[in-house]
Amino acid sequence: MKHKKPPNRRTRTPMWSGARASQTRAAAATSAVSREATRVITNADPGQDEVAMIDSGESATLHPLTCQEDNRRLRDYELRVKGAFARIVPTLKSIAARQYEPDFERWAIEEARALLSVELPGDALANIWLERLDMRRLFAHVTFETFRAMSGEYFERDPLDRHGRAQSFRDFLLECGFHSMNVTPCSDGRLAHTISYVLRLPMGVARRRSYAGACFDIEDAVQRWANVELGRFREGVPNLADAPTRYLKVVNYHYSSRDPKRQGCAAHGSDTRRAAEAGLEQLQAFRRAVENTYCCGASIAMLLIGVDTDTDRLRIHLNDASGGANLDRFIDVGEIYGATARLDAGSARTLIHERIAAASADGSSGPVTGMQRLIACLIENNLSQIDYVRTYESGQYPDVGHEERFIGVGADFEEVQLRNLTYFAFMRTLEEGAANLDVGIKIFRRLNVAHGLPIPIVLRFDYAGQVPGARERAIERCARKAEAIAKRYPDLAERGLLHTLWTVHDSSRAGPIECVGGSLQSHGGEA
Amino acid sequence: MKHKKPPNRRTRTPMWSGARASQTRAAAATSAVSREATRVITNADPGQDEVAMIDSGESATLHPLTCQEDNRRLRDYELRVKGAFARIVPTLKSIAARQYEPDFERWAIEEARALLSVELPGDALANIWLERLDMRRLFAHVTFETFRAMSGEYFERDPLDRHGRAQSFRDFLLECGFHSMNVTPCSDGRLAHTISYVLRLPMGVARRRSYAGACFDIEDAVQRWANVELGRFREGVPNLADAPTRYLKVVNYHYSSRDPKRQGCAAHGSDTRRAAEAGLEQLQAFRRAVENTYCCGASIAMLLIGVDTDTDRLRIHLNDASGGANLDRFIDVGEIYGATARLDAGSARTLIHERIAAASADGSSGPVTGMQRLIACLIENNLSQIDYVRTYESGQYPDVGHEERFIGVGADFEEVQLRNLTYFAFMRTLEEGAANLDVGIKIFRRLNVAHGLPIPIVLRFDYAGQVPGARERAIERCARKAEAIAKRYPDLAERGLLHTLWTVHDSSRAGPIECVGGSLQSHGGEA
Repeated sequence: MKHKKPPNRRTRTPMWSGARASQTRAAAATSAVSREATRVITNADPGQDEVAMIDSGESATLHPLTCQEDNRRLRDYELRVKGAFARIVPTLKSIAARQYEPDFERWAIEEARALLSVELPGDALANIWLERLDMRRLFAHVTFETFRAMSGEYFERDPLDRHGRAQSFRDFLLECGFHSMNVTPCSDGRLAHTISYVLRLPMGVARRRSYAGACFDIEDAVQRWANVELGRFREGVPNLADAPTRYLKVVNYHYSSRDPKRQGCAAHGSDTRRAAEAGLEQLQAFRRAVENTYCCGASIAMLLIGVDTDTDRLRIHLNDASGGANLDRFIDVGEIYGATARLDAGSARTLIHERIAAASADGSSGPVTGMQRLIACLIENNLSQIDYVRTYESGQYPDVGHEERFIGVGADFEEVQLRNLTYFAFMRTLEEGAANLDVGIKIFRRLNVAHGLPIPIVLRFDYAGQVPGARERAIERCARKAEAIAKRYPDLAERGLLHTLWTVHDSSRAGPIECVGGSLQSHGGEA
Repeated sequence: MKHKKPPNRRTRTPMWSGARASQTRAAAATSAVSREATRVITNADPGQDEVAMIDSGESATLHPLTCQEDNRRLRDYELRVKGAFARIVPTLKSIAARQYEPDFERWAIEEARALLSVELPGDALANIWLERLDMRRLFAHVTFETFRAMSGEYFERDPLDRHGRAQSFRDFLLECGFHSMNVTPCSDGRLAHTISYVLRLPMGVARRRSYAGACFDIEDAVQRWANVELGRFREGVPNLADAPTRYLKVVNYHYSSRDPKRQGCAAHGSDTRRAAEAGLEQLQAFRRAVENTYCCGASIAMLLIGVDTDTDRLRIHLNDASGGANLDRFIDVGEIYGATARLDAGSARTLIHERIAAASADGSSGPVTGMQRLIACLIENNLSQIDYVRTYESGQYPDVGHEERFIGVGADFEEVQLRNLTYFAFMRTLEEGAANLDVGIKIFRRLNVAHGLPIPIVLRFDYAGQVPGARERAIERCARKAEAIAKRYPDLAERGLLHTLWTVHDSSRAGPIECVGGSLQSHGGEA
């Protein structure tokens, strides 16, 4: 599980390298699951600067405020889900190799059940005496089934315990003076674990709206603000409209400490300063929009944070006198980690609060009390995540680049809470979101198509179950998007190198997603 | 101005017939303006049934409740605007014919100024000794300039007096128990005059959202409802949230009394019953959506009306016990016209109120008092419009089919309040709205392309001026849409048979639209 010296580059061996094919059978065992999910080092050139100071291994001393139990639970979840995806190619390879042997059909179905927990479609196996197995379709089928299993588990068994922590965090937010918290990370797959891992917040209470470059849609944000306000006025949810609390908008930009000029935010040319500036501008524009659109002191609270995608450590920008974030004044949680690692828990907490309060004493106004409490909470949460990366990734992720397993198109995928699993292209229509998807397709041409594998695309549209016809319109939207995608990349679609799974989700209840169709006929039939 | 016997069919002679070219010069005079705007009869086969009973001509007896002054003002506006469009082709023809004569450039510019009130682009005329005039570009240019003049007049000089009547109608609506009135006519061009002519309501107070087949977007409607509610809660506009008033949603379907099986609503296969049913279903779905999404007795009031596109007479459906419209119980204003035409104004009003009240006495519950008052108002307004059509169109419009002058794409064009002037294709993206535009392009292939003329498309996106960056995003949206349109109809775009004008409008103030670009370079330069 440990790489003492993390590499700068790696290849995604489990997906196509022949070198490990012989290990496939063994992968059924739990230990092998972990091994499959582990990154294979092909270039042992270590990033030196920041990594050297950090120990690795679970046995290493943890920060006094780190919640080891949470880390173990989160790690188990990550290995389990990523392991399931990592097993797909080796397993399909071993199946492909035996397709002309006697009793193949029965054997293959059992093998897929045992190693992948997936049912292979009988019709795909029945005719192999006539033609070779269509491994591309099988790969897409198994990828989609693995996604479905992951999604089902998330909504039905709550592996990240969001429900358990929801009420206490909701109460805490209100105590801090915020009746709503909406976080916009970049849609980069390396930020997909922001809510549940980097910030350790219960998804649902902290709402997520990812956008490329964290440049969220202002009109959409104003509409969400208005909907929250109406809920307070009409229903007193989460509190009455005259309570002196605010709507908190958080922008989460990102950078790479190891390779800042190449592995930062692509939307901002890997320029950390520009990424932060853009986030701040967007926050200010949103605030002005709310203030100018509504009277009676309507406004929002803002928080700008940055995350180092190599170590998951946070920068939390402090607000200046005008209430807006200051680009140059921020608390670096990595630095806090170093300063408090050898203290006891109480002293560490005290020092954290002092650091935040000190920011208020340097001439400009620091964050107000409620915001200070929230920032202290985020810092403490992030300390656990720094230890997570130290413990399980030698302090720095080995995968600096893209390693996603599928593309998610449409609305937010609440169930995707893992780093580098999904490339997101959020959009209402391809006409407006094509640029994002083009980038994703380019990445997957390298990750998958170059190795003969199709690109699995999961479509997602949410609907309000209480609105008549909304589900049908969400399904239509899936169909329209799938058609537009096939039209935009005909070279892939016509060669079977692009497959879609259509999913919709009733946003009015906590139930699972529904698969309503797709380019593999059988998915449509199952819906 | 009078056709004693309206035809079933006509051609749009002013646009391409050579027969009237010699009259072009004379068209500058006011009388000729009217003549140009007048439909030219090519087939004198009269529609007999309903028309025969109605006198024609302004001298004929008007209904006692008809406001003749309004009719004259509205007619003047219609003739002026439609006349301006009708003069384009004859004038350009006469200009084309003289392009090799001495002093042509100066003469052509003056001719266009005098007859069309349009500045011709100097660069288009300068090089005609090298190549022939590009009449297609000139046609698009002049059409767009004529649209700009019409739009400018609407927003700056308020020719339909919407401002003058706004406050009194707003007060009246509140007295009737409605704090908002949102009307969805079909986006068919024959319904574009619904608000200002058929219903005689001040645009702006009565909000318009046109959709094909009047099948409005439920999610969008719920959002609008929520925004109105928030305005009441936060700002007491137009009244406080606890006032017992309701949000009124009106659906306006249509049919053709003269040719019901072919000239009804295309979206519903010219089936009047289906069009009405679809409208009712949409209203009910909207109401359920509001009721299910919000608690505390949230609901809406609904009104279903139908309009005969040949005579503009209304059917107003009465609500049954459940508060929903009854498809079989309606008041036909044409019938009311006949029953009250020979009474004095007071008696006519009394009879109208009795008719509405009687509907409450037949066992099912009729409309409540406020709704009865509103219905009475709509009936009285519509009597004026019936006389409008009797007086100026011999009781029945001669143009049963499509005769639009340009296609409007994007948001609602508030300034378009005239019948059969604009084919609307409302959409946020072409991906979702392509079907509507396809129909429009098909119509204009017949109307324009078949005669060598390009299709003029005006794009429109609204933005909230108080939201930072909103204007720029609206402009981007225009550019994206124009690109998508050119890509969808390459045969037209590449041959110069499709031109776009990009316009945006700040919905937060009453100012004019802004032209921000287009396929004719000079428009971009002027922006």
